[in-house]
Amino acid sequence: MQSTHLSSSSLIHEGKAKQLFLTADPQILRVRYKDDATAFNGQKFDRLLGKGVLNNLISAHIFEDLANFGVPSHFINRVSDVEQLVRRVDIIPLEVVVRNVVAGSLAKRIGWGEGCPLNQPIVEFYYKNDDLGDPLLNENHIDLLSLASAREINELREQALKINELLIRKFSTIDLKLVDFKLEFGRQPDGILILADEISPDTCRLWDRKTNEKMDKDRFRRNLGGLLEAYQEVWNRLNKVEDA
Amino acid sequence: MQSTHLSSSSLIHEGKAKQLFLTADPQILRVRYKDDATAFNGQKFDRLLGKGVLNNLISAHIFEDLANFGVPSHFINRVSDVEQLVRRVDIIPLEVVVRNVVAGSLAKRIGWGEGCPLNQPIVEFYYKNDDLGDPLLNENHIDLLSLASAREINELREQALKINELLIRKFSTIDLKLVDFKLEFGRQPDGILILADEISPDTCRLWDRKTNEKMDKDRFRRNLGGLLEAYQEVWNRLNKVEDA
Repeated sequence: MQSTHLSSSSLIHEGKAKQLFLTADPQILRVRYKDDATAFNGQKFDRLLGKGVLNNLISAHIFEDLANFGVPSHFINRVSDVEQLVRRVDIIPLEVVVRNVVAGSLAKRIGWGEGCPLNQPIVEFYYKNDDLGDPLLNENHIDLLSLASAREINELREQALKINELLIRKFSTIDLKLVDFKLEFGRQPDGILILADEISPDTCRLWDRKTNEKMDKDRFRRNLGGLLEAYQEVWNRLNKVEDA
Repeated sequence: MQSTHLSSSSLIHEGKAKQLFLTADPQILRVRYKDDATAFNGQKFDRLLGKGVLNNLISAHIFEDLANFGVPSHFINRVSDVEQLVRRVDIIPLEVVVRNVVAGSLAKRIGWGEGCPLNQPIVEFYYKNDDLGDPLLNENHIDLLSLASAREINELREQALKINELLIRKFSTIDLKLVDFKLEFGRQPDGILILADEISPDTCRLWDRKTNEKMDKDRFRRNLGGLLEAYQEVWNRLNKVEDA
């Protein structure tokens, strides 16, 4: 923990689940994980005390794990219960979604039941734009909106699929099925793309491998209750493996 | 007109705008253009006497024109005011949409105003499935649903862009701007893909080049009135060039 990074603390961005602060180093930002839970583009909202702590722990753990497997991210280190330092990047306004099992909007789009396994992972790009409701985009739309070049789209897809492989394996060791997840990427000053945002039960659908119980934000979206307990259980399982 | 084709007339499919009948030749179907106007997945409905005649004329004319430019279709010939004979194909349940100007769902998806010209045409694939509301699909979805192979998707895109070039030029000669349009394709018994369905003001957005007046089904969708007059004007302009 480098205290210089924390000396300056002006808020530069407030998202639905996190705040971003400047630090003394212009290349480094401080992320603060909030306790806010939101869904359906912010229409559903609650504050769940302790969610920020858990997502900060889980996301830091996963980013460290991915780095060990050769997938760098914006993550530098965790500096408090709810804060981590990250490299400053220009976030590409695309939500890169990878799916291994039919759930959520894919079930509605293609008319298949939730829980159908996919033979091959599906990659989707959504426009990160609350005003438009984060619509699905194809590659022509991404090009039209100048969100990413064709080369970058291919790289986003390849990185997302590589991360999917690593995360499937990771979660499988703790008896969780990785149903789907959302990634965001950023451009570094040199133009290179790097994984950013967070990876947590807010951004992944995780089902218990034996019971298929939902251990993710769907507990909030679908009023199932027990969100904090589920996130705590995900963290306990991750942390246990770490200790072992 | 081969009367044998018309001897058998059992209805085998009824769509929102057309009926399909068997003929004595199992490889040939008779299409009957209805006067029904529908929009918003059938929620809006009206009967506009004379629309079937006009769309049959316009679609036959355009299919003939495309054939002259080396783009074959299922169209064989027009056999009555509201009927044409077509080659029987297995329709691929994809709506292939090509856009030259922002309008309709693209305006909503990307947040740009209607009328913005696109530097390059956009191609979109929608799942032809009323129950699901004809959702946008990406190539991963098309593969998952086994709707078309990667090779076929490329061919659909190439054919659609070629047809776009030809239609832009065609409509430009009659002072109409081709804003966007929807195509459907079918597989022939040998597996080769061929243009099918119809090309008419029901399936194209056509704006008068000088006034930007809408000459297409948006007159019905948006309660602008004068749909039949607009379709008649499109036909008059097409027919005039034919005579010239």
